[in-house]
Amino acid sequence: MITSCPSALRASARARTSNADSVPRRERFSAMCNCALVMCVVSDVPTKERTIGGRRTAEQNLWGVQPAGPMLFGRGCTPAREPATICLQCVDTQKGAAMSDDQSRPLDDEEVLRYWIPRLVADGGDPNDALAVRNRAATWDAWPDAWAELGDGYIAMGQDRLALGHQASAAAAYVRAAICYHFAQVVAFHLPELKTELQGRKVAAFREAAPLMSPPAERLDIPFGDANLPGYLRLPAGRDGPVPCILLVPGLDSTKEDFATIMEMAVQRGLAAFAFDGPGQGEVHPRILLGQNYEACIVAAHEAMAARPEIDAERIGTLGRSLGGIYVVKAAAVEPRIKATVVFGGAWDLGDWPAMPPLIRDGFVYATGADDEDDALARLSDVTLDGCISAVTSPVLVVHGRNDAIFKAHQAERIAAALPGNATLWMDEDGVHCCHNHAFEYRTGMVDWLDRTL
Amino acid sequence: MITSCPSALRASARARTSNADSVPRRERFSAMCNCALVMCVVSDVPTKERTIGGRRTAEQNLWGVQPAGPMLFGRGCTPAREPATICLQCVDTQKGAAMSDDQSRPLDDEEVLRYWIPRLVADGGDPNDALAVRNRAATWDAWPDAWAELGDGYIAMGQDRLALGHQASAAAAYVRAAICYHFAQVVAFHLPELKTELQGRKVAAFREAAPLMSPPAERLDIPFGDANLPGYLRLPAGRDGPVPCILLVPGLDSTKEDFATIMEMAVQRGLAAFAFDGPGQGEVHPRILLGQNYEACIVAAHEAMAARPEIDAERIGTLGRSLGGIYVVKAAAVEPRIKATVVFGGAWDLGDWPAMPPLIRDGFVYATGADDEDDALARLSDVTLDGCISAVTSPVLVVHGRNDAIFKAHQAERIAAALPGNATLWMDEDGVHCCHNHAFEYRTGMVDWLDRTL
Repeated sequence: MITSCPSALRASARARTSNADSVPRRERFSAMCNCALVMCVVSDVPTKERTIGGRRTAEQNLWGVQPAGPMLFGRGCTPAREPATICLQCVDTQKGAAMSDDQSRPLDDEEVLRYWIPRLVADGGDPNDALAVRNRAATWDAWPDAWAELGDGYIAMGQDRLALGHQASAAAAYVRAAICYHFAQVVAFHLPELKTELQGRKVAAFREAAPLMSPPAERLDIPFGDANLPGYLRLPAGRDGPVPCILLVPGLDSTKEDFATIMEMAVQRGLAAFAFDGPGQGEVHPRILLGQNYEACIVAAHEAMAARPEIDAERIGTLGRSLGGIYVVKAAAVEPRIKATVVFGGAWDLGDWPAMPPLIRDGFVYATGADDEDDALARLSDVTLDGCISAVTSPVLVVHGRNDAIFKAHQAERIAAALPGNATLWMDEDGVHCCHNHAFEYRTGMVDWLDRTL
Repeated sequence: MITSCPSALRASARARTSNADSVPRRERFSAMCNCALVMCVVSDVPTKERTIGGRRTAEQNLWGVQPAGPMLFGRGCTPAREPATICLQCVDTQKGAAMSDDQSRPLDDEEVLRYWIPRLVADGGDPNDALAVRNRAATWDAWPDAWAELGDGYIAMGQDRLALGHQASAAAAYVRAAICYHFAQVVAFHLPELKTELQGRKVAAFREAAPLMSPPAERLDIPFGDANLPGYLRLPAGRDGPVPCILLVPGLDSTKEDFATIMEMAVQRGLAAFAFDGPGQGEVHPRILLGQNYEACIVAAHEAMAARPEIDAERIGTLGRSLGGIYVVKAAAVEPRIKATVVFGGAWDLGDWPAMPPLIRDGFVYATGADDEDDALARLSDVTLDGCISAVTSPVLVVHGRNDAIFKAHQAERIAAALPGNATLWMDEDGVHCCHNHAFEYRTGMVDWLDRTL
């Protein structure tokens, strides 16, 4: 079934209250662009060359912006040559326009406000921190240090609060430190040593938080072939027998720690949650690189949780974020005991590769340890639901944003269409990647769906 | 004692990591202005007349902004006459420059980003909602409808989730609805009927949330003279005997519902919290107007909580927000059983009146039911700590932001100086009113302080 999503609810509420005098901008310009917040004219002439994996590719950059409608911010204008029309709301869907890996470009307010703040807040961060970084980092080069400095402040705060016996505040401060370190490293593919160091600080910060949480997060190492995969298990307080459990599968360049808010929602609703790093992710990179058969680690995590006496082995589901959303479907195809699956900003395959933001393609090269993009794609040749999705017979929820710049909406629609009997699609017409800009609705919505489906 | 505050910690962390190449903008311009984020030249010539309480007063407005340093946003420039220098970071400290009651002026990004988003998030709202309002409301006239529409969406979400049995999500949605309705009405003094209607929707939304919270918020009416005052009591789960309790006292045009985040912090830390509306606030306005002897209602709330078997009558403290911060000190002076007091963005008196933003002065006229500002001031003639503060012998924590536009920093410093033996002052050099832009540190800090002081 394909059902309407919470955005329809918003549109309905809007319809009830709006009148001709207060038509929101989105609607006034809806004839011009699908999302149509602000219309601009931008040159489509390549203006900059970039190097990745030894190859040189021409990239378009945002310049020559010319207002053709009301602007949120005034901007200096340069006449555009051979203009093409884009919309600033979905600017991050334009190749190279935003989420570029050109670190010397100015920090763009629209990118910060429309993508990074929503993602930060969704993962438990503080928008005041993003505004502070915006005010202190003139270019993306300065982004890592600005975030790391905020992380250091939260570490100091956590230590101070813990010394006074305030566990709850210490835990919250350490979680915020981890988020700051994550944001510090998220654009730093060009500085692998710095990225590794910041990842280490992220891991250490969250590890301080884990035992202080209420209920605590138990650190586990689950067997995976000859190796172990690290994870955190939170069990709800006041259990009366075994409880259902959600396996939380990170995406590209996200990790188990980034599931803090979803884990909190789970335990508040009486569900256990286990988040772990798989190949190419967090603590496991570069020990095991992202490659073929990632779904084996989800099966291993399922096995480990099914063996826990606190968890009901018949009621274990998965939630895969972004790239993890592909893998949870593949896992459901090979492990029929997985009772329900959530594809959270996922995809059918990597067919959108050429249109993905450069930062994301850099991420794939990094996670796979590839020499270049072609090598990365070769290492990920099994990242497709072709030939396996028909084996999925359990319920699947697909959550996606129409403005997703990384995995385009047709990817999610294809998954839902391939599972007509058991998939539910929530497509948010205003949503960015993982619907971070509507995180409250969808994150509670996904956990609630698992709560009633498991 | 006067101790250093968490901002010193941030400065210290900054000092450890910053170097000459990455001096933040604040520091680069520190010679120009105390807070010095962006320097502008603005005319100090009155440009607009406004009417309040039957009197006409000349107000300065933001226009003719001329960049004299790096601008966060480009702006159209008009040459200024008789220029005066202000800083956009503390723009809300300028009389009439922001938080004006001119509703036809454009929605200003700096005001939204620097004051309203931090306050919204501090009180449990979603910055995505503020960005949505920013994108849909071109002027402040459109602000109430845009927020109310978001509130309606959350009401519908709460109903949908509740119908499916998801209490936690329903409670969270109703709380967000209440916050949206609060923000809808916060600037609507010029539309008293709309303001009353939106206040009613705020009250109704929170009332839906209260029994669904975990632990629930119990609605109480406490005796106050011939009348009753409505409030919400949250008791921590898993109590082992009577617990300490925080009485939460709202400020001007804030209400018991706005304490949702602080109440949550309290119960997470094993403290009870009771928030209520006093004269001139929330449900009590206009039944009882703001006037003389407000502190009597704090004493009444203390009496009611001391009588509860779940609460330790010897361990009751207060936290007064903004205007409520004056009243909690007055209450401590007359009720020695109040064991500890937090002045959260409060003041010594209303001596800063002429410099307060017009919106705030409108609020005093509204809350007191006065004819004009002079009448309001006459009705509030006892709002001063003169002659009473020396009777306060219990511990007092004073939390304040140096950039507070409503109650200037000297007000807080005066309170601390008058109580050399028992006051602690946390002055955040970067803080706005109630340090909303550093809410995490100070709100957890205040509750932690009460936790160890009660």
